[in-house]
Amino acid sequence: MKQPGCELCEAEGGHLVLSNEFLRVVLVDDPDFPGFARVIWNDHAREMSDLASTDQQRLMQAVFAVERAQRAVLAPAKVNLASLGNVTPHLHWHVIPRFADDSHFPQPVWGQRQRTAGAEEIAARRAALDRLRGRIAEEVARVRQP
Amino acid sequence: MKQPGCELCEAEGGHLVLSNEFLRVVLVDDPDFPGFARVIWNDHAREMSDLASTDQQRLMQAVFAVERAQRAVLAPAKVNLASLGNVTPHLHWHVIPRFADDSHFPQPVWGQRQRTAGAEEIAARRAALDRLRGRIAEEVARVRQP
Repeated sequence: MKQPGCELCEAEGGHLVLSNEFLRVVLVDDPDFPGFARVIWNDHAREMSDLASTDQQRLMQAVFAVERAQRAVLAPAKVNLASLGNVTPHLHWHVIPRFADDSHFPQPVWGQRQRTAGAEEIAARRAALDRLRGRIAEEVARVRQP
Repeated sequence: MKQPGCELCEAEGGHLVLSNEFLRVVLVDDPDFPGFARVIWNDHAREMSDLASTDQQRLMQAVFAVERAQRAVLAPAKVNLASLGNVTPHLHWHVIPRFADDSHFPQPVWGQRQRTAGAEEIAARRAALDRLRGRIAEEVARVRQP
């Protein structure tokens, strides 16, 4: 079910890592947050409580799989999970690896910038993105279907 | 398992709506966002991927139950869900009913203020909080345990 004019019905929403019958995972090209991923439900649904219970589980299990991949590859200080959708009300989860030295830590990525992140640290995280893509694919494939 | 010095191990984290063996739901006293709730895991755990699968389900089912209650009582334009924990790395979910006329819409509540919300609208939402508390308790009680 696609909704005309919906950005996430009409485009991938980032660099595609994997896609299945239900959802897709993309990496977001954000210079401050290498490894920032989104898990996007394929159908146009607005709220988590609009999904059937098995679909809620499918989506959250994929979100947690992406979190596991980020932890394994990037060892972030914390992972931030959020489903907001005020601008694009099509279910998508932000999965954001956070580091003590990142531009906004400990603020949310939507809050006030705290510093300029070190170029070396950012470059090291960018260099791990191919490995992250592979690990995300593995972790999502390993999820037990509800 | 409590961690000394952890704010959410040592205090409720808001006005308690309900508490069970696994988790609690509190209302946050935020003047801009009446109905802002948090679902807090009782044990000290850091990331969703640190929980066993059944516990992940327990926590998310409670989050979605709070969302259903907010939608039923407040009819928000959107519900925002987030687990950040950069400051307090003890699993807690923000469940925030958002309205087109609220102080930050469509920005995240952690973003830049967009306007002063109307006092009447805020008062009407505050007046519904007792009803919201009751409905949250009902919706959480109705969750099928994994």
